Amino acid sequence: MAEKVVIIGGGAAGPKTAAKLRREKPDIKIDLYTQEDIVSYSACGLPYFIENIIQNPETLIMRTPEDFQKQNIDIHTKQQCIKIDTDRQTVTIKDLISNNIYDVQYNILVIATGATPLTPNIPGINLKNIFTLRTIQDGVKIKEKMLQSKKAVLLGGGYISVEVMEALVHNNIQVTLIEKNPQILAMFDKDFADMITDYIIGRNPGQVSILTNEEIVAFTGNENQEVTKVITSSGKEIETDFVVLGTGVRPNTDFLIGSDIKLGVNNSIKVDKTMRTSNYGVYAAGDCADKFNLVTNRYSWVPMGSTANKEGRCAAINIAGGSCLFDGILNSTITKYFDLTISIIGISYKEALELGFQPEYAIVTKRDKAGYMPNPETMTLKLIADRNTHTLLGLQGIGEGDVNQRINAVIPAILGKTKLESFMNLDLPYSPPYSPAIDPVLNAAQIIYQKING
Amino acid sequence: MAEKVVIIGGGAAGPKTAAKLRREKPDIKIDLYTQEDIVSYSACGLPYFIENIIQNPETLIMRTPEDFQKQNIDIHTKQQCIKIDTDRQTVTIKDLISNNIYDVQYNILVIATGATPLTPNIPGINLKNIFTLRTIQDGVKIKEKMLQSKKAVLLGGGYISVEVMEALVHNNIQVTLIEKNPQILAMFDKDFADMITDYIIGRNPGQVSILTNEEIVAFTGNENQEVTKVITSSGKEIETDFVVLGTGVRPNTDFLIGSDIKLGVNNSIKVDKTMRTSNYGVYAAGDCADKFNLVTNRYSWVPMGSTANKEGRCAAINIAGGSCLFDGILNSTITKYFDLTISIIGISYKEALELGFQPEYAIVTKRDKAGYMPNPETMTLKLIADRNTHTLLGLQGIGEGDVNQRINAVIPAILGKTKLESFMNLDLPYSPPYSPAIDPVLNAAQIIYQKING
Repeated sequence: MAEKVVIIGGGAAGPKTAAKLRREKPDIKIDLYTQEDIVSYSACGLPYFIENIIQNPETLIMRTPEDFQKQNIDIHTKQQCIKIDTDRQTVTIKDLISNNIYDVQYNILVIATGATPLTPNIPGINLKNIFTLRTIQDGVKIKEKMLQSKKAVLLGGGYISVEVMEALVHNNIQVTLIEKNPQILAMFDKDFADMITDYIIGRNPGQVSILTNEEIVAFTGNENQEVTKVITSSGKEIETDFVVLGTGVRPNTDFLIGSDIKLGVNNSIKVDKTMRTSNYGVYAAGDCADKFNLVTNRYSWVPMGSTANKEGRCAAINIAGGSCLFDGILNSTITKYFDLTISIIGISYKEALELGFQPEYAIVTKRDKAGYMPNPETMTLKLIADRNTHTLLGLQGIGEGDVNQRINAVIPAILGKTKLESFMNLDLPYSPPYSPAIDPVLNAAQIIYQKING
Repeated sequence: MAEKVVIIGGGAAGPKTAAKLRREKPDIKIDLYTQEDIVSYSACGLPYFIENIIQNPETLIMRTPEDFQKQNIDIHTKQQCIKIDTDRQTVTIKDLISNNIYDVQYNILVIATGATPLTPNIPGINLKNIFTLRTIQDGVKIKEKMLQSKKAVLLGGGYISVEVMEALVHNNIQVTLIEKNPQILAMFDKDFADMITDYIIGRNPGQVSILTNEEIVAFTGNENQEVTKVITSSGKEIETDFVVLGTGVRPNTDFLIGSDIKLGVNNSIKVDKTMRTSNYGVYAAGDCADKFNLVTNRYSWVPMGSTANKEGRCAAINIAGGSCLFDGILNSTITKYFDLTISIIGISYKEALELGFQPEYAIVTKRDKAGYMPNPETMTLKLIADRNTHTLLGLQGIGEGDVNQRINAVIPAILGKTKLESFMNLDLPYSPPYSPAIDPVLNAAQIIYQKING
């Protein structure tokens, strides 16, 4: 049994590990080091803080260092881990205030250092008012600038950009989104990405532009070194008051170079189902760790707050001597753009083709309740199954109706390798306010089944 | 290949069979006989018609006989099947207008005669304004009476009574519900039934009474033979303008007595997964057929509109020479009482004990979105798993939050016999507007897992 557990990182997985471990083991010593000045906050809530649905950024903080102290968990803020030595079982920490460097001994180490936004190497990138969004401070800066602005550019068409787009549009900003690929939201099939684009453009005509197949080649600024314009690969010059970069993130694992901790996809840390790394006494959890994809049976790297929480919890149970296996992920994601729910689980049709499946699909657009009920909302679902095995591979769903309900019905079916012929008759509960008599997602399964069976 | 398919019954399963069979086989002869004067209507929508959320009862009719005629499906209304002869492959039909009796030849017969409300044998039961609710005419009569009334009594505490209660309360009727058991909604555990009762009472204090452990021993009426009062087993006398009976239904299978079609639970028709009866050329689908319960592995009889549609579709595919196996049901049901969603799937804790499982459960009350998001709704979930196999047995859910989404996540997990240790880490999609980082239903699974593992 470990006497001293050291946790590196204070986002989601680290604090979760600490809190769960304390509940399991009241007497163990737990120290958490983080380079930030707060711990245990929800980065996923930041777009809603910018939008001003949430006014006080402190509400995004789940627990303060003082809360942890009451549980006898020592939080060390502004302390960056710069090296680990698994032979000596030490981590080397740099105090970001005094610049002192010191070693800390551990029996069990948990790496939960998260991820950092990528900053593209574009001329002018160091101008003022070009932001990334990861920390609460980032959110505060973007919100302050937004409140004095009229125009913004978003670079990259991922979920964060869609969420920030909603925040800015809600605050009457003129927004241009620039995406180098032919579509936004790369994990979706193009037909769905295009429907989402149409919804975004159509909701606020004239206020929003989405430029695909377009890159930023330079930022230009004024005499105060503030960004004023972006210049694109096709020669467009777009005036702007600020820019938010949504060009992806990378795992914070640079400090592991030279250690015996194996790295995997995208330099994320290789972990097994117990959340152990290649070194038995070292665990990793959250955005810095790799993820096994249960649909593709491949390792991937998909940083998600929900996964971070589950992995942190599992690591704690295993450290405490219990048993928790984290089998993997299904690439489940969801977000919204105002009233439109946007969700994908598993893999898209194009990804299924790339991976060598023999995919078949059905697209259905249906009401979310019985046809005669007032105020129906609609949804469009694209279900994908494999012609060889008849198992489900993925679902894309968008709509103002309850997409989430249909997404959730497919997730355990993918996990359990439920065949199409069973799934299409699945006993989803029916009542006129909640669905048509045959649920849209079952309808999609029926159509695929018919396609496969000629 | 059958030349002539005769379908008996015009509710949900019969018309569904006819329509699907026509799509599969454009040239086959299809005749549908029904004792009613309409076909293809949604009985499940009737409470919302009474409530006046739906104004025109005809919107509950999916397709008219004329619509079917355009597809070359002959609908024969007011024609009751009184006998079948599987040796001669005939059905004997009584014309309810002329009283003529005649035989009809079939190659394939589909029995979809549905169910009829039970009428309890109570003195005064034949007084006017004592209604059952099954057909559109029933709904029209209840609505007409309600609009001239102030007080009503509902007998029986099942889903229909809860839905009619909403309709009546919405129309300012003083309602008393009388239930002979210690709780309403018998399929729920008592703790959940009591919470639902409290919600119903609390929403309209003084307007609603729910009397459990109470039976009606007599109805008394006025000189016009209209009910004016019910007298209960404990001696209460309750004045009322009308009564709605919600004391269950029974399958319409009396005409099969003496035939070689085997009956099962509650005299419902025994069917296999292809929807065939004990006679190879005779299918049955919908409320008249028995259901295999995939949780208990026993045959049961649970009449549901969604199941009727799926079974009718399966029967049609098999008749057309294709392959569709209807594996069974999971007892999935859902309804609402104003903003409260009420749902159960699988079995309750008490039923699990009765059936010899070793159940463990967790009850969680959680918000349906991240804690910092505005306007959260809550839900209470009771998840049940088996200590021996670690598989899930059922979920009860109530709340103003999105219960349906959690219910749907459990349904394929029960079907796929997903173990608790996998389910608790299930990759349900997360975003602050849609759930906490660890979804409430996963939280419940974690708690059971901890209980089982000490």
